[in-house]
Amino acid sequence: MKIKNVCILGAGTLGTRVALQAALSQFNVRIYDINPKALDTSKKTMETIVHQLAKSSGFEADSGLNAIQGIFFTDNPQVAVQDADIINESVLENVKVKNEVWELFGQIAPEKTIFTTNTSFLLPSMFAEISGRPERFCALHFHDVFYAKGVDIMPHPGTDPKLIPVLEAFGRSLEQVPVVIQKENHGYLFNAMLGAILSTAGKLLANGVGSVEAIDKSYMVNFRVDMGPFAIMDSIGLDTVWHVTVNNNEEGSKAFAALLKGMLDQGKAGVKSGEGFYKYPNPAFRQPGFLS
Amino acid sequence: MKIKNVCILGAGTLGTRVALQAALSQFNVRIYDINPKALDTSKKTMETIVHQLAKSSGFEADSGLNAIQGIFFTDNPQVAVQDADIINESVLENVKVKNEVWELFGQIAPEKTIFTTNTSFLLPSMFAEISGRPERFCALHFHDVFYAKGVDIMPHPGTDPKLIPVLEAFGRSLEQVPVVIQKENHGYLFNAMLGAILSTAGKLLANGVGSVEAIDKSYMVNFRVDMGPFAIMDSIGLDTVWHVTVNNNEEGSKAFAALLKGMLDQGKAGVKSGEGFYKYPNPAFRQPGFLS
Repeated sequence: MKIKNVCILGAGTLGTRVALQAALSQFNVRIYDINPKALDTSKKTMETIVHQLAKSSGFEADSGLNAIQGIFFTDNPQVAVQDADIINESVLENVKVKNEVWELFGQIAPEKTIFTTNTSFLLPSMFAEISGRPERFCALHFHDVFYAKGVDIMPHPGTDPKLIPVLEAFGRSLEQVPVVIQKENHGYLFNAMLGAILSTAGKLLANGVGSVEAIDKSYMVNFRVDMGPFAIMDSIGLDTVWHVTVNNNEEGSKAFAALLKGMLDQGKAGVKSGEGFYKYPNPAFRQPGFLS
Repeated sequence: MKIKNVCILGAGTLGTRVALQAALSQFNVRIYDINPKALDTSKKTMETIVHQLAKSSGFEADSGLNAIQGIFFTDNPQVAVQDADIINESVLENVKVKNEVWELFGQIAPEKTIFTTNTSFLLPSMFAEISGRPERFCALHFHDVFYAKGVDIMPHPGTDPKLIPVLEAFGRSLEQVPVVIQKENHGYLFNAMLGAILSTAGKLLANGVGSVEAIDKSYMVNFRVDMGPFAIMDSIGLDTVWHVTVNNNEEGSKAFAALLKGMLDQGKAGVKSGEGFYKYPNPAFRQPGFLS
């Protein structure tokens, strides 16, 4: 199973980043979205990322921009999947939408195509059957590709074990560190741990044990890292954090979900809205003296 | 309330480190332990730390060794507490032992002495009354002093609020970042979050979702840090981790506690015994290629 042609479904944040890295890693890339405007935005985002990479590393902007020119952007499913060796699906995190996508692509994809989903919290077994090729279906989950470089490989019980080393090699060729999950789990390994940190921080705040700043300071100084849980939540987006929190039945999560809902009602959704637990672009936790 | 004379109760790991930093910060330091052998070990540990600091930073070993010469080591409670402005207690994490210590020192300490406990998971309100001066009693909790430089200041409901800024200033003078906790909580802020990470990692392992290495890799690569949860547990000591886990009633914790018990029965207690989840002194997670 030699992978050369990569088909990305969904031109959102993650699909855009995986497609860009695949092009930078010399794969032939086609990226599909049902919405042509999303494809335009995706291309612009790729250009922005290339310029940022050029600034922060020795990377040449021109070679990156050339790689983007080689990517095929399309809203035509048949064209997108033509001759694809692998599909990585990053459409909306919604069971119905993912079912529709996998039912369609299961019918039109070449026989050789490996099917992978980039879902964050759902399970590959939810879509394996409807895709029509459960044995070639697996989760292949990226974090943010350019900063957090882990890629989760999570089979469902029906996945052909021969697929795993193929996906590990593919992950490495995308400059990621492959992590194999032995058994299906909502949130893989990392998102499960991250969720525990964020939910504990949220409960400490909602229960009045500590302030946003005290909780983040405590995390930053003792782990010696540059962001605490509330800064991380701001960067994820408080709408997403609220969505996960409100579905958590643990004691104390309801109070934190209510606090998040109040912030969202005031338009505070985190970095993307200019304000969340901190104000951007110059949040307090990045100011000199925050840790003193 | 000017702090000049510092009395440390308990010459174990943490008491030793706080006493050393206080001496390096020019305080007059007396350190007490009921066991004279512990005092000898404490002095040797301080010398080792000074040599390590001299190696890893521009710090001069001689000035550190001089500071240790100025520390008064004693197994006599009356001598230890003579003229003390503050006590920081780091005796065994056991309610009965701490009660005995605070009952004794409450009787023999000068009237001016501020009482602080360095407990990791207990609460200051448990010892405030027996000390005889609840309004001058507060938790002042260090992490490891030289690497993780947070210091938690956690009052109980009867603590005089005027004590807080005094303890914040004292923490800063020991080169720590003070974190004020608004309300008593087992594990303050950081230990509560750390506990959530370790317990989630333990459950993922015990449930067969991922291997030790996969869980640590996933944490290290996505947070871009050099230790994952199992490496952290090895450094804490698996006896301590087991003690916390076995008292946790959450689903899944029992299975992880049993796994830890099995390791301890084989003599695997983490870094200090040469083996835990990894083998020391050259654990796999520090080898080049672990993240690939």
